[in-house]
Amino acid sequence: MCGIFGIFNHEDASTITALSLHSLQHRGQEACGIVTHDKKNFYLEKRLGLVGDNFTKKEVIEKLPGSYAIGHNRYATTGETVLRNVQPFFADLSSGPISIAHNGNLTNGIFLRKKLVEKGSIFQTTSDTETIIQLIAVSKRTRFIDKLIDALFQIQGGFALAVMTNKKLIGVRDPYGIRPLVLGDLDGSPILTSETCTLDIIGAKFVREIENGEIVVITDEGIKSIKPFPKVNCRPDIFEYIYFSRPDSFLNGKNVYQCRKNFGIQLAKESKTKADIVTAIPDSGMPAAIGYAEESKIPFELGLIRNHYVGRTFIEPRQQVRQFGVKLKHNANKGCIKNKSLILIDDSIVRGTTCLKIIKMLKDAEVKEIHMKVASPPITHPDYYGVDTPKQNELLAVNKKSIEEMAKYIGVKTLSFLSVDGLYKSMGFKKRNDNLPQFADHCFTGDYPVIPIDKTLGESKHNQLSFLSNVNI
Amino acid sequence: MCGIFGIFNHEDASTITALSLHSLQHRGQEACGIVTHDKKNFYLEKRLGLVGDNFTKKEVIEKLPGSYAIGHNRYATTGETVLRNVQPFFADLSSGPISIAHNGNLTNGIFLRKKLVEKGSIFQTTSDTETIIQLIAVSKRTRFIDKLIDALFQIQGGFALAVMTNKKLIGVRDPYGIRPLVLGDLDGSPILTSETCTLDIIGAKFVREIENGEIVVITDEGIKSIKPFPKVNCRPDIFEYIYFSRPDSFLNGKNVYQCRKNFGIQLAKESKTKADIVTAIPDSGMPAAIGYAEESKIPFELGLIRNHYVGRTFIEPRQQVRQFGVKLKHNANKGCIKNKSLILIDDSIVRGTTCLKIIKMLKDAEVKEIHMKVASPPITHPDYYGVDTPKQNELLAVNKKSIEEMAKYIGVKTLSFLSVDGLYKSMGFKKRNDNLPQFADHCFTGDYPVIPIDKTLGESKHNQLSFLSNVNI
Amino acid sequence: MCGIFGIFNHEDASTITALSLHSLQHRGQEACGIVTHDKKNFYLEKRLGLVGDNFTKKEVIEKLPGSYAIGHNRYATTGETVLRNVQPFFADLSSGPISIAHNGNLTNGIFLRKKLVEKGSIFQTTSDTETIIQLIAVSKRTRFIDKLIDALFQIQGGFALAVMTNKKLIGVRDPYGIRPLVLGDLDGSPILTSETCTLDIIGAKFVREIENGEIVVITDEGIKSIKPFPKVNCRPDIFEYIYFSRPDSFLNGKNVYQCRKNFGIQLAKESKTKADIVTAIPDSGMPAAIGYAEESKIPFELGLIRNHYVGRTFIEPRQQVRQFGVKLKHNANKGCIKNKSLILIDDSIVRGTTCLKIIKMLKDAEVKEIHMKVASPPITHPDYYGVDTPKQNELLAVNKKSIEEMAKYIGVKTLSFLSVDGLYKSMGFKKRNDNLPQFADHCFTGDYPVIPIDKTLGESKHNQLSFLSNVNI
Amino acid sequence: MCGIFGIFNHEDASTITALSLHSLQHRGQEACGIVTHDKKNFYLEKRLGLVGDNFTKKEVIEKLPGSYAIGHNRYATTGETVLRNVQPFFADLSSGPISIAHNGNLTNGIFLRKKLVEKGSIFQTTSDTETIIQLIAVSKRTRFIDKLIDALFQIQGGFALAVMTNKKLIGVRDPYGIRPLVLGDLDGSPILTSETCTLDIIGAKFVREIENGEIVVITDEGIKSIKPFPKVNCRPDIFEYIYFSRPDSFLNGKNVYQCRKNFGIQLAKESKTKADIVTAIPDSGMPAAIGYAEESKIPFELGLIRNHYVGRTFIEPRQQVRQFGVKLKHNANKGCIKNKSLILIDDSIVRGTTCLKIIKMLKDAEVKEIHMKVASPPITHPDYYGVDTPKQNELLAVNKKSIEEMAKYIGVKTLSFLSVDGLYKSMGFKKRNDNLPQFADHCFTGDYPVIPIDKTLGESKHNQLSFLSNVNI
Repeated sequence: MCGIFGIFNHEDASTITALSLHSLQHRGQEACGIVTHDKKNFYLEKRLGLVGDNFTKKEVIEKLPGSYAIGHNRYATTGETVLRNVQPFFADLSSGPISIAHNGNLTNGIFLRKKLVEKGSIFQTTSDTETIIQLIAVSKRTRFIDKLIDALFQIQGGFALAVMTNKKLIGVRDPYGIRPLVLGDLDGSPILTSETCTLDIIGAKFVREIENGEIVVITDEGIKSIKPFPKVNCRPDIFEYIYFSRPDSFLNGKNVYQCRKNFGIQLAKESKTKADIVTAIPDSGMPAAIGYAEESKIPFELGLIRNHYVGRTFIEPRQQVRQFGVKLKHNANKGCIKNKSLILIDDSIVRGTTCLKIIKMLKDAEVKEIHMKVASPPITHPDYYGVDTPKQNELLAVNKKSIEEMAKYIGVKTLSFLSVDGLYKSMGFKKRNDNLPQFADHCFTGDYPVIPIDKTLGESKHNQLSFLSNVNI
Repeated sequence: MCGIFGIFNHEDASTITALSLHSLQHRGQEACGIVTHDKKNFYLEKRLGLVGDNFTKKEVIEKLPGSYAIGHNRYATTGETVLRNVQPFFADLSSGPISIAHNGNLTNGIFLRKKLVEKGSIFQTTSDTETIIQLIAVSKRTRFIDKLIDALFQIQGGFALAVMTNKKLIGVRDPYGIRPLVLGDLDGSPILTSETCTLDIIGAKFVREIENGEIVVITDEGIKSIKPFPKVNCRPDIFEYIYFSRPDSFLNGKNVYQCRKNFGIQLAKESKTKADIVTAIPDSGMPAAIGYAEESKIPFELGLIRNHYVGRTFIEPRQQVRQFGVKLKHNANKGCIKNKSLILIDDSIVRGTTCLKIIKMLKDAEVKEIHMKVASPPITHPDYYGVDTPKQNELLAVNKKSIEEMAKYIGVKTLSFLSVDGLYKSMGFKKRNDNLPQFADHCFTGDYPVIPIDKTLGESKHNQLSFLSNVNI
Repeated sequence: MCGIFGIFNHEDASTITALSLHSLQHRGQEACGIVTHDKKNFYLEKRLGLVGDNFTKKEVIEKLPGSYAIGHNRYATTGETVLRNVQPFFADLSSGPISIAHNGNLTNGIFLRKKLVEKGSIFQTTSDTETIIQLIAVSKRTRFIDKLIDALFQIQGGFALAVMTNKKLIGVRDPYGIRPLVLGDLDGSPILTSETCTLDIIGAKFVREIENGEIVVITDEGIKSIKPFPKVNCRPDIFEYIYFSRPDSFLNGKNVYQCRKNFGIQLAKESKTKADIVTAIPDSGMPAAIGYAEESKIPFELGLIRNHYVGRTFIEPRQQVRQFGVKLKHNANKGCIKNKSLILIDDSIVRGTTCLKIIKMLKDAEVKEIHMKVASPPITHPDYYGVDTPKQNELLAVNKKSIEEMAKYIGVKTLSFLSVDGLYKSMGFKKRNDNLPQFADHCFTGDYPVIPIDKTLGESKHNQLSFLSNVNI
Repeated sequence: MCGIFGIFNHEDASTITALSLHSLQHRGQEACGIVTHDKKNFYLEKRLGLVGDNFTKKEVIEKLPGSYAIGHNRYATTGETVLRNVQPFFADLSSGPISIAHNGNLTNGIFLRKKLVEKGSIFQTTSDTETIIQLIAVSKRTRFIDKLIDALFQIQGGFALAVMTNKKLIGVRDPYGIRPLVLGDLDGSPILTSETCTLDIIGAKFVREIENGEIVVITDEGIKSIKPFPKVNCRPDIFEYIYFSRPDSFLNGKNVYQCRKNFGIQLAKESKTKADIVTAIPDSGMPAAIGYAEESKIPFELGLIRNHYVGRTFIEPRQQVRQFGVKLKHNANKGCIKNKSLILIDDSIVRGTTCLKIIKMLKDAEVKEIHMKVASPPITHPDYYGVDTPKQNELLAVNKKSIEEMAKYIGVKTLSFLSVDGLYKSMGFKKRNDNLPQFADHCFTGDYPVIPIDKTLGESKHNQLSFLSNVNI
């Protein structure tokens, strides 16, 4: 996933960026960074961990002067979580200073990297975002914006970029609009952000979404739009609605909470079951569970209590506590579920490991029976555009031959999924347009909008991108 | 509040204690500490901040060897949050080493302290818990247990103690049982903890509650009960049900989640209002809101979205963001509430400052109208037994002359409270027994089970307990 | 050893104290602390390590406001180097706040401690300095100064104290004046310090030494002297001249550098040897070596080069480097000593382990022959007044039967010591007055000015002063 | 200055490197770094501050596995002291991984950098050492060693390099041999180090100096020497003898301590003065002062006492302490110098600011008169090969018209310098060979062995090498 943000010409640029990254924290908890400039110098602070643990201290914010800023929340994808891989990246180019924050994944990043290194480019990171900068650096074009377009035409995949030079703030969304990017306005200062919830929290106005394939260039002279790519239909990632985005965000004009509630309502229509109560795996399953309860008239209850003080890994006792990991986050609310038949709702199932543990815990709390309902279709294909999904054979829906086998594996009486058409219906469409799908839904259908070159070539596995091991700089 | 824990003779004593304090984190987030011993030496680690930030590292746990441990979560009460005030406390007495963790507040702590200092006792902290230790130290009795009883007879207030010597683990609950304490068992190792949710999380069995006025002495020989105080009826603090305890805990055999849901159901019976949706101030108002929705048949929705990554104070931008503080924690879910009439549920109102801000935020999100419903009676008197409530004239219900004025102040169309009798009804009683109330409910009634001597003498204000200023040792 | 300092009514009290402790750093490198007050509150900062590593940052100094301060450098004596044992100590007594810094050792500290604990005193440290505070706390006298005198009459040993209340700064020197204490003046602000070098460095004037058995009380009204003890002759510790004090300090009107040079001159008179060069073990042996060279006319050379960047313990390579520990501090200056016969000077020999290693290193550098000359007599008895000397049977001069055996053990051709009478001669006396010795010289003579009660009773070994193990608070 | 080190195939490579950098600490105290590899991965740790503060902990050394290592001590030269500028540098080249440590300064570094950036190279630092790596990266040659030679032919200035690939350890010394580099052997493992004192301290054997213009390539097959440059005479920097190197090192077969003592002897011959005592500014002036005393027969004394616990900057009291900065490091030994006429020796005078302060301090200590003698000629020209000398007009010898004016300015009765010919005589030459000088002595003569291109073009001032401001990564 990852979250990105940018603000142009606001006296509290770094403070606002910190606050905004905090509002996007759900998009990446592994690391975060902010780059600012004051038209003369650039300032950069990168940290492992949460925004609230790192960008709340006055001393840190004071190291980030200037009225122009971009920021990044890093999601734990493959590869090393080391400071040098934390964005935004900065480089001194012949055209001047540049900084980039990137949400997404290049499907031909390794292929391009190899070619660049052979010609003498020195990579400092193992991130594919650096490939974009190196492509800009070696571009033979003269104007910066042309160098950028030159680079964008070479890269493939899902990407949303916030790019900052000493004069410009630039927002870019890939030709399919797989990853989101939104334009806002805070008292006259233009803003780029991954989600609209940021705008609520910092008190800014929503202007519009950046279109798929659009480059928005913000300067002192105003905001200019460039659309260099051949026009294609937008195919935003359906997972933004299912799981990634915050429920209070709007995406393509649709409120995420309502979409999720609709998934629950549709699920109740597709899959009727008698039970005493409806409960959710907190917090991602909550809106669908509320929808399911509303439609089915079965009471909604808090069958699992979430511990709000999570985020750290405790040392496991030698004499094992059952469901140790899960219990750090959740506890079965025995007083509410004992001897009850339960409809258990979650937003999706990937490997099935988490729901397996939660179901065991519910059974230990003497629940009568569990009917698991998943508010999206079975995941049968990995993602390559910004989310670190497991290899195909690790997916539960690939691993097990049938719904029955899956139900047996995770330990429930019945298991149901939302249908693909149900999904599209909940989103307001009659059905999926199989020729020109309205969303990037490859995880459910195998229909990839962009061919993943690096994966096809099988390169990523065999290549050691850097010989510098896990260095924390 | 505060949370306390103790474990006797378990090879992973410090790991289990860390995990247990984590399960009691909601009882105190300001600081935490663990003391262990290996029958020879005692080991002590105290930290400001959360358990998960401090007791998850191997290096820290390795500094806490031994099979015997007690732990403490400190709640921000009056006075200094400095390391020297963080519990458990340790002392080398003539009878041997002792460590104490205390949940509660002495109502004559300052009075006793003054007398002790005059005779030559040197206090290291400004905590009233140290008074208990100093009383034990100067006791003329011979056996340790007699010294402890000697001390307990002198102190007044609400208290639950976990006391550890190099041979014993001792649990104490005050004569009225104002503060909770529970006995558990983990694979044969006896456990003391403030709440039953701990037992679920570490996989231990519930044995029984420590009775009011009971001393439980755990040694290698087994568990012995002493009841030195004149017998009185138990009066647990009703706020444990309303707010303090975790919803998945059981207190006096009652599930806290169900009690809270009952408050909501009773509230719906007492106070009927037409509206589009029921929503809660997360997370404390959730069970009551679910109860209210169930009883009233008005749909329950997530009208406020909680940011799970809170706990830090961000630097406020110079150009003020409206409702800055509130927005760090919550955001109005506009997609769900816009143009709707809203029933807003919270567990209680103290000063009214938080709900005032949230109501403003909901109005900014264009809600049609708000009916605030509070799942407990108006708070009219401060607490002196372990919770830091504001002075009487800062309480909203004291401050404003009528419900209407209160409604006007916080900005809602109507405001309703649960009645005192409704509260007792929800707890399974016909009504409050005014001669012998079933709970400590002084915050609603002014009926204090123990006279607060220090407050009566007006001493706490005028006394500087220590001249050592905020020292962090 | 330890170094102590105090300043009364100076706007830069904490800054000056930090600087002064830095000037006394040679008296103790293990830990340091400063306590200040502003007539209302006391402020305390204690750290393990050097003054320059801990009290140079603005943030730390800002935590120490107020115009009144005392400070302490801790020398690694027996027992735990943990923060709770680092001075100055602070206590809230019935008479008000008090802070104490102590240089020296009580010879009946454990005996007194035991009695106090039995009556209910709770000790927080394992330091005998706390005994003084506890004695003051339980004194039945009324005025603070009488409580202090009450305590001083009970303690025995060598001690120099800086005591600070919210009104007074008090300097105390034990009846024999074993440990030094000096009165100075910085622009009208009275100062107490262990050595005169402090006064040079902070630009203060020397006023006078505190006399043996004298209590100097500094208040807003001025400086008052009290002499409550029966008058005895002063017997300062001769080791202050031999090793402890800085060469630029004056003690009893004598310049330490000149005394040490005199030891070298006297040594050259007592022990003539033919050699090519005179060299010193840096830096303690330097003044005596210069004296020896001057008297003997043998050229002085830097035969050992000291690494100025020491103070840290490196990880030793598995495949051992010869003389690893020594080489971190010194290297033989081969270009200067190869094939030369060497007179090697040191100030004293305790266990002989260091000079043994240095001599091996010199031999590896192909020196022709070494004649070791020690600028003080053989050490035959342990000290009990503030220095951590080894047990008697670990002393080289006790361990080996004769000078020849000692020479053989450390690996030199000849070994000579300064005679006891030579020592007194160098100090300006005709000889030692055996009835009423001019110095505390028990390490050379076994003639202890104060009987070491704790050691006689053999208690210290068998008692565990605290069951709290190495806690760093 | 800077110090560099490398070791090939030793199981304790990182430990040995830490120890060795500690032995070279005098060559640079600002920062330090170590890179190791295990033939598979490279490991890098860089820190601001001293080796002993950073590379003594087990956790740090454990992050540096592998049997191959290079290290670097950074001297505070112009530009930013930020982690990204701390060496060794690492890069992933198309030829494989490479790491470089560099002692010296390129005189055409900025010129080359500009050209590289224009072609698309992205610089991560503002150090000219990175220029060498970027030149290697873009070299069109095939073999790594040819790429390196390709780069070396383009750079100019004084340089000694330790270069490490996953197969080779390479030592390089510039054509004139301005900066030193030595080959050693530790139990069969080849070593590169800036000075021979390292070899003593780690117990290694001296093999030989790397020759001027020589490339030494160490592989599993053995040690190979390449001399690609046209042969010129070696001209080592005379300041290595005067000030940079440790006195116990040997350079070109000459012991540095003896050379410095010779400067003092020669100075005594050239400049005779009657006085009571000879004293040195510690520690750099010590050997020359001992030489002067020996030749002049005037007694050598420790007139200034050095505080061994320096290296930190204390907060200056508001009410100024005279000679604050100097007193942190030195104190006048009044007992030794009061009313004496003094010959004061230092190794050299640059700006004169330090000796000015020390002379004031000596006068405050009531010295009778001071004759300053400098054991090298007046410095009239800046250095450009690795030392950060001030601009020409800040040099005392340029600033003041005559020796008399200089004496008056620093406040001494007379001032003398060693003559240039005296300098060469002390080094064993009859006189300076003006056509082919034996040393790089441009600071005294203006005779630069290599033309400083960047300075000539006046570029360094006007160019902002990086827009990234002082970032600590």
